[in-house]
Amino acid sequence: MRALRLERDTARVVDAPRPEPSADTALVRVELAGICNTDLELLKGYLGFSGTLGHEFVGRIEEGPTEWQGQRVVGEINFACETCPTCLEGLQRHCPSRSVMGILRADGCFADYVRVPIKNLHTVPERVPPEVAVFTEPLAAAFEVLQQVHVEPGRDCLVLGDGKLGLLIAQVLQLGGARVLCVGHHPHKLAILAKRDIQTALAADWRPVPTSIVIEATGTATGFERAVAATRPRGTLVLKSTVGHRPKIDLAPLVVNEIKVVGSRCGPFPPALRALELGGIDVRPLIADRVPLRDAVDGLRRAAEKGALKVLVEPD
Amino acid sequence: MRALRLERDTARVVDAPRPEPSADTALVRVELAGICNTDLELLKGYLGFSGTLGHEFVGRIEEGPTEWQGQRVVGEINFACETCPTCLEGLQRHCPSRSVMGILRADGCFADYVRVPIKNLHTVPERVPPEVAVFTEPLAAAFEVLQQVHVEPGRDCLVLGDGKLGLLIAQVLQLGGARVLCVGHHPHKLAILAKRDIQTALAADWRPVPTSIVIEATGTATGFERAVAATRPRGTLVLKSTVGHRPKIDLAPLVVNEIKVVGSRCGPFPPALRALELGGIDVRPLIADRVPLRDAVDGLRRAAEKGALKVLVEPD
Repeated sequence: MRALRLERDTARVVDAPRPEPSADTALVRVELAGICNTDLELLKGYLGFSGTLGHEFVGRIEEGPTEWQGQRVVGEINFACETCPTCLEGLQRHCPSRSVMGILRADGCFADYVRVPIKNLHTVPERVPPEVAVFTEPLAAAFEVLQQVHVEPGRDCLVLGDGKLGLLIAQVLQLGGARVLCVGHHPHKLAILAKRDIQTALAADWRPVPTSIVIEATGTATGFERAVAATRPRGTLVLKSTVGHRPKIDLAPLVVNEIKVVGSRCGPFPPALRALELGGIDVRPLIADRVPLRDAVDGLRRAAEKGALKVLVEPD
Repeated sequence: MRALRLERDTARVVDAPRPEPSADTALVRVELAGICNTDLELLKGYLGFSGTLGHEFVGRIEEGPTEWQGQRVVGEINFACETCPTCLEGLQRHCPSRSVMGILRADGCFADYVRVPIKNLHTVPERVPPEVAVFTEPLAAAFEVLQQVHVEPGRDCLVLGDGKLGLLIAQVLQLGGARVLCVGHHPHKLAILAKRDIQTALAADWRPVPTSIVIEATGTATGFERAVAATRPRGTLVLKSTVGHRPKIDLAPLVVNEIKVVGSRCGPFPPALRALELGGIDVRPLIADRVPLRDAVDGLRRAAEKGALKVLVEPD
């Protein structure tokens, strides 16, 4: 099969052996996969990953238990041991010996086939087409904000960043009843939210009004300090951006204003799938491009362009 | 009256006019005051303060409303407007137009007299002698941890730092039923906790075991990253240290491990006074020295020595 492999900082589409499913895993034929900013960070050396890239996918089970045969699925990306104290506490996504699809010790989905533990699979409702279902993983990461922080209906929330994740988070918060303002740099991205009656502002024109719930999704090293300055005393700042280096940061305002910073990563698939099924979140405007798997390296380049939205990879 | 004034980075005991109490304030004759690390940071230019230093005190009301006459009091240090939205929400300690005794736009208590808003005063129970009552303000800052974070009885807590605040926080957490480990650099300080059956370890001998509640009270710029590394996934890190500069910080572990960082500053006086009255917290071993007000500059020097505990200043 073909696979986009990252080896020593170089990504190439190569011929790779098709994975063999074991008793607890299924072999999924990938229908569509999505390029995430984490893939671009991995290319730059983040986590030192080598192997097949990709962790956002939708596909059909080709080999696995009878009851799963032929089903369209999405899959959670953290492969946990299920036996350590962290897993037994229900924190499988934090299992210290986990592997993570396309990120850490496990091959990813920019390939014709990907192997996924059966317990990580979720059936995609028939009403949800592949180009929508492929957003389940990033949308789950957006839902993680509601999982971690109590956002009361009517609460003012500030989303900093109009990247793919920022646009999803803004929609999820609105779905939860919050009054959302998203601040970004790209009129064409903010317009996606404005169409859904979410307030937006261009960063250049925006004067911060400290807000009690702020989500940092700029993906930049300088975003954190600016997000702290935009958070009210005793407010909550949800930190979504991971950057590969160590910026200089003034922590004193966190202490003086008693701000709570909540690191936030992967989230729950079921509410994400449900929102996609019910149409509460509109992901189609986020699709910037579709490239065939053989051109996946071009896809990565395209996804890294300034202001690019979601680039999908399609085994053809 | 005499006052230890900070002007242009130099602290000197000078002759200063005695403050005039207004309708809402009382004039307190200072009996005993305590030197805090914040005073030492202010000396280095933190917040650009100039004026009379000092914010930990116990004293007697000399002028004020009849019902307060002659009472022994301690006083909260944030002087709020009581009318802005932040104050009306009950967050007076975060009032954006507040002044703070000896820290921000208000003269402090390293003086014969200090002026304090009446609403900030708390009567000291007769059983609590001045050298104990003078710890109310820093002990309140320790109680702030319990105010902000739910620490269940039996919960493992890790306190990083065996400075004055670290020692108080370790005792407060133990009082709340937690199982506390305090890690520090000074055997004579850790011994104070060991005597009260609190587990201790010397930093040099200690191998971090990630803990679900960690309190960073090292007062150092490098403490934060180490504290993050000692916090379990989905754990809570309470940040007490304020340092004047901007260290380089890797924020990715906060996101990957979904850690919650809670900035923590001043706390509630009533539980602190009650704990001092009931003897639940032993502050006397924390007293390193007592200097007369005329030698307060020496006192600051003494407090800045490596490993120094609480230095008290006494108008004689």
